[in-house]
Amino acid sequence: MTDRVVLAYSGGLDTSVAIGWIAEETGAEVVAVAVDVGQGGEDLDTIRKRALACGAAEAVVVDARDEFAEQYCLPALQANALYQDRYPLVSALSRPVIVRHLVDAARAHGATTVSHGCTGKGNDQVRFEVGIGALAPELRVIAPVRDFAWTREKAIAWAEDRDLPIDVSKRSPFSVDQNVWGRAVETGFLEDIWNAPTEDVYSYTSNPADPRDPDELVITFDCGVPVAIDGETVTVLQAIRELNRRAGAQGVGRLDLVEDRLVGIKSREIYEAPGALALITAHQELENVTVERDLARFKRTAEQRWTELVYDGLWFSPLKDALDAFIAHTQAHVTGEVRLVLHAGRAVVNGRRSEQSLYDFNLATYDEGDTFDQSLAKGFVQLWGLPSKIAARRAAKL
Amino acid sequence: MTDRVVLAYSGGLDTSVAIGWIAEETGAEVVAVAVDVGQGGEDLDTIRKRALACGAAEAVVVDARDEFAEQYCLPALQANALYQDRYPLVSALSRPVIVRHLVDAARAHGATTVSHGCTGKGNDQVRFEVGIGALAPELRVIAPVRDFAWTREKAIAWAEDRDLPIDVSKRSPFSVDQNVWGRAVETGFLEDIWNAPTEDVYSYTSNPADPRDPDELVITFDCGVPVAIDGETVTVLQAIRELNRRAGAQGVGRLDLVEDRLVGIKSREIYEAPGALALITAHQELENVTVERDLARFKRTAEQRWTELVYDGLWFSPLKDALDAFIAHTQAHVTGEVRLVLHAGRAVVNGRRSEQSLYDFNLATYDEGDTFDQSLAKGFVQLWGLPSKIAARRAAKL
Amino acid sequence: MTDRVVLAYSGGLDTSVAIGWIAEETGAEVVAVAVDVGQGGEDLDTIRKRALACGAAEAVVVDARDEFAEQYCLPALQANALYQDRYPLVSALSRPVIVRHLVDAARAHGATTVSHGCTGKGNDQVRFEVGIGALAPELRVIAPVRDFAWTREKAIAWAEDRDLPIDVSKRSPFSVDQNVWGRAVETGFLEDIWNAPTEDVYSYTSNPADPRDPDELVITFDCGVPVAIDGETVTVLQAIRELNRRAGAQGVGRLDLVEDRLVGIKSREIYEAPGALALITAHQELENVTVERDLARFKRTAEQRWTELVYDGLWFSPLKDALDAFIAHTQAHVTGEVRLVLHAGRAVVNGRRSEQSLYDFNLATYDEGDTFDQSLAKGFVQLWGLPSKIAARRAAKL
Amino acid sequence: MTDRVVLAYSGGLDTSVAIGWIAEETGAEVVAVAVDVGQGGEDLDTIRKRALACGAAEAVVVDARDEFAEQYCLPALQANALYQDRYPLVSALSRPVIVRHLVDAARAHGATTVSHGCTGKGNDQVRFEVGIGALAPELRVIAPVRDFAWTREKAIAWAEDRDLPIDVSKRSPFSVDQNVWGRAVETGFLEDIWNAPTEDVYSYTSNPADPRDPDELVITFDCGVPVAIDGETVTVLQAIRELNRRAGAQGVGRLDLVEDRLVGIKSREIYEAPGALALITAHQELENVTVERDLARFKRTAEQRWTELVYDGLWFSPLKDALDAFIAHTQAHVTGEVRLVLHAGRAVVNGRRSEQSLYDFNLATYDEGDTFDQSLAKGFVQLWGLPSKIAARRAAKL
Repeated sequence: MTDRVVLAYSGGLDTSVAIGWIAEETGAEVVAVAVDVGQGGEDLDTIRKRALACGAAEAVVVDARDEFAEQYCLPALQANALYQDRYPLVSALSRPVIVRHLVDAARAHGATTVSHGCTGKGNDQVRFEVGIGALAPELRVIAPVRDFAWTREKAIAWAEDRDLPIDVSKRSPFSVDQNVWGRAVETGFLEDIWNAPTEDVYSYTSNPADPRDPDELVITFDCGVPVAIDGETVTVLQAIRELNRRAGAQGVGRLDLVEDRLVGIKSREIYEAPGALALITAHQELENVTVERDLARFKRTAEQRWTELVYDGLWFSPLKDALDAFIAHTQAHVTGEVRLVLHAGRAVVNGRRSEQSLYDFNLATYDEGDTFDQSLAKGFVQLWGLPSKIAARRAAKL
Repeated sequence: MTDRVVLAYSGGLDTSVAIGWIAEETGAEVVAVAVDVGQGGEDLDTIRKRALACGAAEAVVVDARDEFAEQYCLPALQANALYQDRYPLVSALSRPVIVRHLVDAARAHGATTVSHGCTGKGNDQVRFEVGIGALAPELRVIAPVRDFAWTREKAIAWAEDRDLPIDVSKRSPFSVDQNVWGRAVETGFLEDIWNAPTEDVYSYTSNPADPRDPDELVITFDCGVPVAIDGETVTVLQAIRELNRRAGAQGVGRLDLVEDRLVGIKSREIYEAPGALALITAHQELENVTVERDLARFKRTAEQRWTELVYDGLWFSPLKDALDAFIAHTQAHVTGEVRLVLHAGRAVVNGRRSEQSLYDFNLATYDEGDTFDQSLAKGFVQLWGLPSKIAARRAAKL
Repeated sequence: MTDRVVLAYSGGLDTSVAIGWIAEETGAEVVAVAVDVGQGGEDLDTIRKRALACGAAEAVVVDARDEFAEQYCLPALQANALYQDRYPLVSALSRPVIVRHLVDAARAHGATTVSHGCTGKGNDQVRFEVGIGALAPELRVIAPVRDFAWTREKAIAWAEDRDLPIDVSKRSPFSVDQNVWGRAVETGFLEDIWNAPTEDVYSYTSNPADPRDPDELVITFDCGVPVAIDGETVTVLQAIRELNRRAGAQGVGRLDLVEDRLVGIKSREIYEAPGALALITAHQELENVTVERDLARFKRTAEQRWTELVYDGLWFSPLKDALDAFIAHTQAHVTGEVRLVLHAGRAVVNGRRSEQSLYDFNLATYDEGDTFDQSLAKGFVQLWGLPSKIAARRAAKL
Repeated sequence: MTDRVVLAYSGGLDTSVAIGWIAEETGAEVVAVAVDVGQGGEDLDTIRKRALACGAAEAVVVDARDEFAEQYCLPALQANALYQDRYPLVSALSRPVIVRHLVDAARAHGATTVSHGCTGKGNDQVRFEVGIGALAPELRVIAPVRDFAWTREKAIAWAEDRDLPIDVSKRSPFSVDQNVWGRAVETGFLEDIWNAPTEDVYSYTSNPADPRDPDELVITFDCGVPVAIDGETVTVLQAIRELNRRAGAQGVGRLDLVEDRLVGIKSREIYEAPGALALITAHQELENVTVERDLARFKRTAEQRWTELVYDGLWFSPLKDALDAFIAHTQAHVTGEVRLVLHAGRAVVNGRRSEQSLYDFNLATYDEGDTFDQSLAKGFVQLWGLPSKIAARRAAKL
């Protein structure tokens, strides 16, 4: 039987050209796999047909939007995953779901090899290849751009030579990756880190500086899952999309940062993640109300590690799985409602209520009904400070 | 010699009444100590005179604003100190500087006891008493409100009985604490955590929803210290005040959260910290550019612990000191400029430059001049993922 | 109905006297509860009769040895729980199981109050009271020794006055607490931390310096649970007891350390935990073979926090529960055999084998059969060191 | 000028052959650099002459023993550095000091390249190359064994062909690396992890099972530095050597573990580190006496990260430097004496005393002189457990 190579296919120039090039180079049949993670753009059928027109033996298209929302975005939300305290892991989340479908296709179509279009200086090559190695250690990987120095210029020439049905004239001044959790933009004039981004960089968000009226909504969570917006039941995917729409319209979710890549360099990245950031903001505040203090403190440590692992391409890894068990446990009481105001680039919580609240009005109030026994405090304070006091006595003695 | 008690004096009703009450109760002379940490309000001389008029044997007033900015706010800035990822430790920072002056006064005036006006259910009692224990383990502490159930009603009656020169009619519907690093508001209708704050809660910030033009500025840091704004040299205190003014005018720095107090309860707090949050935002991004990845990752762990310690009243403690040594070391290269846009409640960095930058254009660019050797990536990716791959092989085998 | 107080009853002088004293002081009936956690000594029936003879309205005795081994010691083993890297949490583990039975008895017998005999400067008061508060927040607590300054001298006088059936003449020069997981000794001449312990301090272990032949055994674990010794199936309790016997006979498990108590002081403690330390040694090494590196590294952080929580009396707490979920997940592959040599105070692993091993002979060997592709290393090394190299270039430039 | 290559030279077969091979392969002159880190064996002059006889243009020998002890072993001692809680970083410590001398030699002799004899599957290649990159980013690296698949068989043939003055008949059945901090042994029959090590594996330690009398000694530390043994002033190097001798004679310091290598595989390692382990044991216990609790707890986190970094080849890295600042701060009070008993493979502390002690007899004692105010405990316990209690009330309500 002819060997087969599964190719992560986007429908764009580089991967369209790769179909033919891989076939020629390896003698294998190419199975193109396109995964919809909410990136928008062309419909899947158009992409499928182009793959076949470019020479794919098979073209597989997968609508993975709900799967992506529920199994990848939701854990990130529950982990309040913000790399460098800011970036909600947009691309880092979509790679593992794509990997899963590449591996499925490889097994279904008897492929021995997987190919992706990543460069050798980004994070995504790591996410693809480590993910493939963890799900299917027997598969080989080809990365034409990295391993064969394949460039855009070569791709255009190849496409024109073979008259492939691709418009080679379109070119964004930026490199863009997008999915329902957000959108990442880099390269071009942004590589000068003193340059401010211009409005044309953005697509998911309106200009926060434009005048408009605020938008207010109530998000309901059930065990850490957003289940309703303004009382209307939603799926996770619907929650993200609705908040992308409403928070995006208010200019919420723009980020501009210098980021530490896994491969050891710093890069400058612009992100838009209106839904992700609005949901994380709401979720964090509901946790403030429903999660016990020591648990909340340690959860930050676990969240940071979770986020680093996912950023670093280790979605499918033993530590990630064990941290998921920890985080899942923390969500048991994260149930309730959060009122969120969206305006001019801000997503601000100004109300929260929960049957599972650990906020106890009677303990907190300074008015009538106060049940807190202040006489306990003196002993607490004395013993709390005793180690420092003993150390101070030593210092005084010496 | 008559025993003396040093009293942390604010000039307000409770501590004015406490002067006489402590004198009566203990037979000691009261030394009132008022410390200016940028809280605004009355001038120090007025406060000093009131203390004497209320019966203080001595009244000490200290302008500690520069000291507070340089020795307390600056370390918090360098630690990017945000309790629960949000709250910049406003009150938690001023307590230790006040404690230092209380202890100084106790030693200068031969006092054996220190008194403060905190309740028994807040954090500040801990900060005062643990701080005093760490600086002067020999001093005793009296907390009339907590230990003798002293209430506002009793205070008013006492003041009226003795005709003290205090206006007992003024009463804020809230409990407020403020200093140059920010302002904290609690109690009243805010104790219902579903209630949104109203505009009258705020004083340091304009309404972010009001239409206005953006403000843009460049902050210069030298080894983690803000040293200039728009090219004009500033002290740390000036930097904070200037940013309070400019960021506050844009509505930057409002916070509304449910917070985990050290004494074991959750409380609802409103904060305004325009200068603090603008400076931390700028500082974090300059760190993104100038601090190496592994150091940046561990620094988050150190920052969280530093912040918890300071929140928990352990400013004067061996661990806090050792973490200061760590953080000081991390600031050696945090030098450069950050361009910050302030608008409608947002403080956003959109440019950064530094002689100390670890961002290397030639390694980062995808254009001409790229010096990154992509051939190195393949081996890196393989070994990076090897542990997960071996674990996957085990899973496949079983 | 007469009010009832549940008393944690040991059968010793202090708690025997407490039965009558509490009854007199409070007018309540006393329900004495004795829990066997493997402490040895008198049989439960003798203890039960003494409680009744001393005036208890009810006397409940519980054989909790298997429960203690399986639900308290086993999680500690899986967490490799060593406080200060040394102490296997002997007393800290038994308190929560006792608390559970006190609470059960309080509910069964309609008690409103629980009483324990701890002092006010140790950890155990915290473990009792925090545990009770977490299982039954409605119960009150009385601690006669702490709250009423009850002393041994008073207890003897009381017992003699009332002719209680207790031998008041016996007195250990030390304070001892023991259970199947180990034995703790403190006070007496050990309070001078320069004094070495003498042989009479020890009971669970022979003198390691005595000449004897080594003992070798193989422990089988299944998912982190010791299930067989030398091929013979054992319960957790049997595993601990067998290793107490065999490791104790070799002098394994003696500890002597200065320890940080939760109440803020340092104390000097002697422990014997032959079974616990032998099992932890074997378990750790099996984890070395079967747990993936990143997971193993983070598990240390989780283990330390777990251990601190349990030491600090927070067995029944949300963070402890969530860490249990994490640790449980890590044990899924901790299956296999460990060969352990016990001799002269040492427990040393010198062989391990497992179907779940991540040690791959073919990747590890330097001999024939080596499958490790060394050509991958160069790229790995270069990118691994790139952040340090870029930082070095900065340093060189400046 | 002819190009020069600096070669890390051990005097053994592989690196002796490498001299000529590198010269032929690259056309460069080879500068052989041998560094004495206490590995024993041949004297430096013999090694120097052999290098020249094998064709080196220059042969540099460095007695780095004191430097190694003071600048590399001492920080490891102060960090209580035990990788996987067991392994005191023997080889990981010597690589950076060798790197420093290789770089010095490269600069002194105008070399552009450094060469080492490590394989591609171990940790040492990383330590060499990352270290070189961090000290001299401009230097290139050649690793003949890894990059040119150079084997022992080829080396013997080469040596015999050219009649090099090397005894090719000697071969250890193991791969050994040793220095004053310890000795590492791997490969051979030890690659079967069920095999127990045999006595011939060991060289630094006597059989712990041999009958002998115990040895007792007192180690004096000054700010974390061992400065005297039994009252005799020692340098750090002398302290390590004396303890290697005395602890080694008692069979102290043998380790047998499966270890997680940085390159992603597990390997089986035997170590002997009598001096290192005895010193760490003593140092940890003196820290128990002199370091405040919260600082001690966080120091464990810092120690683990320090140890991982050093193991992972990142000695010369920004995070390592910042952690050094933290650890240095923690040692300010680690001054005092520890009495250590060495016997039959155990190193046990049974006494400690210090002017800087935080152990306070009067707070700790249960006898006369007790100054601990037990009345403080009740309030402490209540507030300490309040978050768990509130969570319990929620659970009860639901």
